[in-house]
Amino acid sequence: MERRVDQVRRPAVPPPRALLDTFLSSLKETFFPDDPLRKIGKEEGRWRKFVAAVKYIFPIVDWASSYSFSFLKSDLISGITIASVAIPQGISYAKLANLPPIVGLYSNFVPPLVYAVMGSSKDIAVGNSATASLVMASMLEKEVTPLENPTLYLHLAFTAALFAGIFQTTLGLLRLGLIVDFLSHACIVGFMSGTATYVSIQQLKGILGLKHFTASNDIIHMFKSIFSQTHQWKWEPAVMGIFFIFVVLASRFISKKRADLFWVSAITPLTSVVVATLIVYLSHADKHNIEVVSPFFLCIKRTENINIYNQSILQIGYMKEGINPPSLHTMVFSKPLVMVAIKAGIVSGIIGLAEAMAVARIFAMAKNYKIDSNKEMTAFGVMNIAGSLTSCYITAGPFSRAAVNYSSGCKTAMSNVVMATLVLITLLFLMPLFHYTPSTVLSAIIIGAMLGLIDYKHALHLWHVDKTDFCVCIGAYLGVIFSSAETGLAIGVVLSVLRLLLFVARPRTSVLGNIPNSTIYLRMDQNPVARSIPGFLILRIDAPIYFANASYLRDRITRWIEEEEDKLESRAETNIHHVILDLGAVGAIDNCGVGMLEEVKKIMQKRGLIQLVLANPASEVMNKLHKSKVMDFIGREWIFLTVSDAVAACAAGGRNSESV
Amino acid sequence: MERRVDQVRRPAVPPPRALLDTFLSSLKETFFPDDPLRKIGKEEGRWRKFVAAVKYIFPIVDWASSYSFSFLKSDLISGITIASVAIPQGISYAKLANLPPIVGLYSNFVPPLVYAVMGSSKDIAVGNSATASLVMASMLEKEVTPLENPTLYLHLAFTAALFAGIFQTTLGLLRLGLIVDFLSHACIVGFMSGTATYVSIQQLKGILGLKHFTASNDIIHMFKSIFSQTHQWKWEPAVMGIFFIFVVLASRFISKKRADLFWVSAITPLTSVVVATLIVYLSHADKHNIEVVSPFFLCIKRTENINIYNQSILQIGYMKEGINPPSLHTMVFSKPLVMVAIKAGIVSGIIGLAEAMAVARIFAMAKNYKIDSNKEMTAFGVMNIAGSLTSCYITAGPFSRAAVNYSSGCKTAMSNVVMATLVLITLLFLMPLFHYTPSTVLSAIIIGAMLGLIDYKHALHLWHVDKTDFCVCIGAYLGVIFSSAETGLAIGVVLSVLRLLLFVARPRTSVLGNIPNSTIYLRMDQNPVARSIPGFLILRIDAPIYFANASYLRDRITRWIEEEEDKLESRAETNIHHVILDLGAVGAIDNCGVGMLEEVKKIMQKRGLIQLVLANPASEVMNKLHKSKVMDFIGREWIFLTVSDAVAACAAGGRNSESV
Repeated sequence: MERRVDQVRRPAVPPPRALLDTFLSSLKETFFPDDPLRKIGKEEGRWRKFVAAVKYIFPIVDWASSYSFSFLKSDLISGITIASVAIPQGISYAKLANLPPIVGLYSNFVPPLVYAVMGSSKDIAVGNSATASLVMASMLEKEVTPLENPTLYLHLAFTAALFAGIFQTTLGLLRLGLIVDFLSHACIVGFMSGTATYVSIQQLKGILGLKHFTASNDIIHMFKSIFSQTHQWKWEPAVMGIFFIFVVLASRFISKKRADLFWVSAITPLTSVVVATLIVYLSHADKHNIEVVSPFFLCIKRTENINIYNQSILQIGYMKEGINPPSLHTMVFSKPLVMVAIKAGIVSGIIGLAEAMAVARIFAMAKNYKIDSNKEMTAFGVMNIAGSLTSCYITAGPFSRAAVNYSSGCKTAMSNVVMATLVLITLLFLMPLFHYTPSTVLSAIIIGAMLGLIDYKHALHLWHVDKTDFCVCIGAYLGVIFSSAETGLAIGVVLSVLRLLLFVARPRTSVLGNIPNSTIYLRMDQNPVARSIPGFLILRIDAPIYFANASYLRDRITRWIEEEEDKLESRAETNIHHVILDLGAVGAIDNCGVGMLEEVKKIMQKRGLIQLVLANPASEVMNKLHKSKVMDFIGREWIFLTVSDAVAACAAGGRNSESV
Repeated sequence: MERRVDQVRRPAVPPPRALLDTFLSSLKETFFPDDPLRKIGKEEGRWRKFVAAVKYIFPIVDWASSYSFSFLKSDLISGITIASVAIPQGISYAKLANLPPIVGLYSNFVPPLVYAVMGSSKDIAVGNSATASLVMASMLEKEVTPLENPTLYLHLAFTAALFAGIFQTTLGLLRLGLIVDFLSHACIVGFMSGTATYVSIQQLKGILGLKHFTASNDIIHMFKSIFSQTHQWKWEPAVMGIFFIFVVLASRFISKKRADLFWVSAITPLTSVVVATLIVYLSHADKHNIEVVSPFFLCIKRTENINIYNQSILQIGYMKEGINPPSLHTMVFSKPLVMVAIKAGIVSGIIGLAEAMAVARIFAMAKNYKIDSNKEMTAFGVMNIAGSLTSCYITAGPFSRAAVNYSSGCKTAMSNVVMATLVLITLLFLMPLFHYTPSTVLSAIIIGAMLGLIDYKHALHLWHVDKTDFCVCIGAYLGVIFSSAETGLAIGVVLSVLRLLLFVARPRTSVLGNIPNSTIYLRMDQNPVARSIPGFLILRIDAPIYFANASYLRDRITRWIEEEEDKLESRAETNIHHVILDLGAVGAIDNCGVGMLEEVKKIMQKRGLIQLVLANPASEVMNKLHKSKVMDFIGREWIFLTVSDAVAACAAGGRNSESV
């Protein structure tokens, strides 16, 4: 019998590998799965390697060398188009973040230039984003009220941007981009829709011309605050606001229906701002209940305390027409405020990254080029650090702007440079014009953009395809609107990770059966043709065996055997004499897992002579079994390369031993 | 060609199942993997079902009906043996928890009786455990100093035990036992060894007779405190303490060498206490630097403030010789202290459960009976609730005591009843004797027990078998000794869970090759006989496809294709025209995963006509592909039951289309 068994194919115990070797190769597989340096390594000669490395770090060197006139034409058109989105969005989202509108414009000047040099996406258009603005604001507001202390609040925003940048750069350099992978798409959709709902309701304040508003962060308090002041509602801003919401939505509808009219929705925000500003200027509506934006001191004007106003002018006085002033000296590094800035920076930084990475991937796929997420993160980080030093708050790559950029035919990151140049012109010459821009039109633009972000269709799709994903999405949504942005995000992430952990803790085990006239074994519950083999129970484990599932698997395997024995007993068939575990899908095993196999062997020995057989273990598993000496306990002769080998050998062995 | 392709076997799309059905079956698989109610379901008739249910909830009904005289004899012997361990341990561990020694004895009276009725392990001996005591103490100490406010501290300990019980019961009833599965064995070993090291060093205080000691929780401060007071060291307690440490270690050594002398180490603690007490009583050593234990007010005697002492006598005055007094009226339910009690209860409760479950499993395996973890948790929870109402603090099933119970031949939980009876006798009649028990002997017993818990051998084994497990173990160890018990536990759990998440985020993908003259496909890197098939790239994904790994898998698959193409190009061989993904080991897929497959298909379409083929998808995967319409995009005709079917069909199709 011994001879026969040894004829069959067996998996080999892999030769021992040096510890450093194993460590480095698993490090590479974990953090460099896309092998970004392969191209550099391929080049020959030091100089060529150096050029390849420079091209890797600064993609502009790569594409600028082959930049053509036709590219420039396309980039000019798309740059002008995204500028017409960026200027009103820059002002509006700064308002969302409780910051002076000019900071919104600053944030659309320096960061796009940095990104154009370092970024590898051809379609992202950089600027301040609604979600990151909102998250940052909701976290800073808790500590410093922007209405009472606008200067400190502004400086905290710069500090938060600095830490966001440092965090993003660190993530990128340490190749920890996989952290962003843990924000599932369902979580992001729920979070974004929640934020959009919340912001839309919040902006009703501007539309209705309310002076006072709740400081609470949930929609229940906001609705209460709105409906308790019905006597304060003003018809002038409401009419204007609703009209412009309608214009924004209508233009989006037109662009959706006809792809060649994409520019209609792209230019609508800027046109709306210009038209509304002209109306106010000509009709003197700012004297008739229509609140106007002061580009430099938006948040200060809202307070009616003249002292604070004057004091703030003195402090923020360095902000005037012209390009971004330096802001390093304004940073707040004293405890406990710096902790707030760090926290807000990390959370809004990761939100910004998640949005930007998703956007970069979508458009990279559409145009078939590759994005190295970790490199992109570094680019975003450097961009935010540079931004924070030049009076910008946190910036990212919002979806809406990238979509406009893509559909207006951009070719390279040059479109960002064109956009930045137009923002510069605005900063230098056009700022005074915004003195007459009514708040209500900015609210209308924000609401118009936000309504497009509420992705109920995707939620329905999730409900249809995957109920757990739907729960994650709805959990994040409800968390945002009823509690706060961070709570919503936390609910989404925790639910998604719990689901992963639950899957690992409760892996699938299934009984395999033989497909007649073949050596193939498949799941019996799903393949009606598969037949069980008398005397054998063949189980497949479809997960790595880890501490978190070891005791479950032991119980589950025991139960499979008991159930099978009960069934056979009732039918008076041959009892089980071999249990074959197909370990083909067990990608890894830890110490507890090895202990589990040992325990299963012991349990079977105690239950009347059932033989445990292992089939198709990976070399990782063989390695651990060997090192822990469990292989000797299970018996090298009971480990086979495939299930069919195991069945053949055991059946032959069984007949032999019976005849003996 | 169409006809040919359709001849091959194909996986079926499973018929749609009702939502509730799917939900219930996955609920059952997750929370009732061991199907504990199967036995009840099997019985026929209402009365028999009822009896089976009673037997399930109160295992005592089951075993008491067949209890025999020979069982009683064994249980008596083992009960007496564990009592001789329980009495000194009860007092010592109460000291560890900064509680009066009598509370330690109370905790060894009520809980074992409750466990005897409800517990299903035959070998666990219930009582206060070192780790749970220490964790509870370290968390309560932060808020209430036991030396300054012993009464409040005591009442908080009862409250913590109540919440621990409620938490454990809830976990058990909700079948959330899987939470304990997330404490990996490596983490528990590191945590226990760390606790043991920490406690041993802490107990040097008793051995050296120091009056003042640092309140800090890390060993650096403790060593500093010990060595800054060298002039305070007293030789009398040191000589006595070191002598008894030696006795305890020697007895353990003897019992280890000869299994029939197991009782030597079992009776040593009690003998040591009796001998030491006698020495002090006869030599009046309590007047010569040897501090004695006051069984009722240990922690109070240490303070030198008479006022607090008197006040405490008034308050804890109800504690005197006799059985456990009720303690419901003493519970602290006012904020913020109740939050501390809840937190301490949950953490020490989960530690207690983890230890007890591990112990129950080890001995259940040794005697071949089954433990239902969730039911055991409920039993422990009820036991702790009952205990908290009768002046007990948190109890568990410590390993050392269960080992003594097992090796002295216990048959049923009756040994716990015997032990409780002996503790009762001590409480009723022997308490005054402890007035002369020196503290140093208790420290010696604790150190002796703790040194046995430092499991450096297991750590070495982990280093040998699994480096990551070793890191988890050492992380927990260092966390405990340099920071605090909770930190150590948190480090261990976080590291283990991170490892799981990392595995899920970076699953293994491998290239498969054909074993000549068979339909079997195995990993090429591990099976040198496996041969690749020209024009095909066969990849296997060994993990569920989830949001956390979807983008990694997309990148990795793309890279496999690129690398393979580079290789083929350099050898001028046939280029790849089919990429087969073997999904046999993909246990589940979420919405992002489905999207990933869609993206891979798109990428391949863009890269010069490579055909994506799926093989062996599970019905879960088929279901999601079908629902999300991605199946239509990939093409039903490109999904096969096995890899060999796919290769055969595609090769035939390829030839056909070439000939056309």
